[in-house]
Amino acid sequence: MRIARFSIDGNVAFGAVEGEGTVEGGGLVLDIIKGIPYTDFELSGTKVPLSKVRLLPPVLPNKVVAIGRNYAEHAKEMGNEVPEVPVAFFKPTTSVIGPGDAIEYPSFSNELHHEAELAVVIGRMCREVPRERVKDVVFGYTCANDVTARDVQKREAQWSRAKGFDTSCPLGPWVETELDPSDLAIQATVNGEQRQLGRTSDMIRSIEDLVVHITEAMTLLPGDVILTGTPAGVGPLNVGDEVAVTIEGIGTLTNRVIKRG
Amino acid sequence: MRIARFSIDGNVAFGAVEGEGTVEGGGLVLDIIKGIPYTDFELSGTKVPLSKVRLLPPVLPNKVVAIGRNYAEHAKEMGNEVPEVPVAFFKPTTSVIGPGDAIEYPSFSNELHHEAELAVVIGRMCREVPRERVKDVVFGYTCANDVTARDVQKREAQWSRAKGFDTSCPLGPWVETELDPSDLAIQATVNGEQRQLGRTSDMIRSIEDLVVHITEAMTLLPGDVILTGTPAGVGPLNVGDEVAVTIEGIGTLTNRVIKRG
Repeated sequence: MRIARFSIDGNVAFGAVEGEGTVEGGGLVLDIIKGIPYTDFELSGTKVPLSKVRLLPPVLPNKVVAIGRNYAEHAKEMGNEVPEVPVAFFKPTTSVIGPGDAIEYPSFSNELHHEAELAVVIGRMCREVPRERVKDVVFGYTCANDVTARDVQKREAQWSRAKGFDTSCPLGPWVETELDPSDLAIQATVNGEQRQLGRTSDMIRSIEDLVVHITEAMTLLPGDVILTGTPAGVGPLNVGDEVAVTIEGIGTLTNRVIKRG
Repeated sequence: MRIARFSIDGNVAFGAVEGEGTVEGGGLVLDIIKGIPYTDFELSGTKVPLSKVRLLPPVLPNKVVAIGRNYAEHAKEMGNEVPEVPVAFFKPTTSVIGPGDAIEYPSFSNELHHEAELAVVIGRMCREVPRERVKDVVFGYTCANDVTARDVQKREAQWSRAKGFDTSCPLGPWVETELDPSDLAIQATVNGEQRQLGRTSDMIRSIEDLVVHITEAMTLLPGDVILTGTPAGVGPLNVGDEVAVTIEGIGTLTNRVIKRG
């Protein structure tokens, strides 16, 4: 099931996405969900065309934990070794935006990069999750763009500003709850031109590895998000660019870059 | 005014702390606040002895932004240079605990350290705050302990696990809203023995510098917290230890270290 979060006439709700089509192309309908999707929920049967709503970030994370250097070819293009332990960092909730929202080019950077990533959405409060239980705490998957101020990342030892500025975490368009994430094509395009192309099977650490590693230290809550690293091909974003992250079996997350107002 | 957050008989409220005394020693009364303290609020006149309540973390942050290496003597004891730009990192909300709560020694570390810090509590949503407006966005100050798994910090390039594990961010005992933070004594004791002693006047970057630096990148929300770095004298915490952070003009934040259950 594909679960979106949206607003219509000032009200916010979750809905199950039905029909064949795309966000931009039409043909999709939302069946409004009663309650919160992380627990047992019912579809209301009340349907609205997706074209009539504004899609929001599909989750409201308490925290976003992101992983660096999880594809060998990307570590190499950055001049980095494959790390001995996963490189885990936080993106704050104030960085999260939804499909169609603008990425604001921040004033303190001159080198903004896209990073297409598979995002794991957590469905249950959990800590110290054993490997064989990871599947029970994962709610689903969505597309993410770990937008990075590359020049700032090079200057500042901790990445809070380089990867945590406002609008640096586009998520969406929805959460796909029925998906085998082990070997999916993941790509980024800028203005329709392909920049990144990889497969999730090239991840150095699997989703199981990452959930075990993160929850060894900290509790994850329903709606929390793990970004699983980006394949090779990262490159610049400029004001006016349209960047799209597409993951096989999920869909496409599209955002435009604007100057911060 | 000193503003605490507390629970009594299952209800949670904010209250103004009145009277002379200490958390442990008694003599303090809470005047229950109507509403949320970050906006205009009224005291209800309903008073409860502080000894009858459970103090909670005095704020519910959306994010905690912490600063590393902001006292020259501490940078030196760690073998680090004073950084050219402030080292800013996040501690997640799942790491926040209140006065009297237990610090759980995590299973993935053998070297837990205390770091006594002045915490700045933000009162207004803000971004790109000019230096001269910083005083307008600060709500008050409290004590913090930036508990750190030092061995993990040395092994992992990003500090999300080393400084973001559950219970690694004690805050409290309350927020002091009327205080000149520029030259306060700050100390940590372990089992009553002094370990850290410094003055906030020894900070390399001032609170103004830090708010400007952080909000250049990201929006801060009411209740967000900035930890301003720790003076020299950091050292080990062991299971059974009682660690207390005392800041002149605020009070004492005390926590016991237990084995994670």
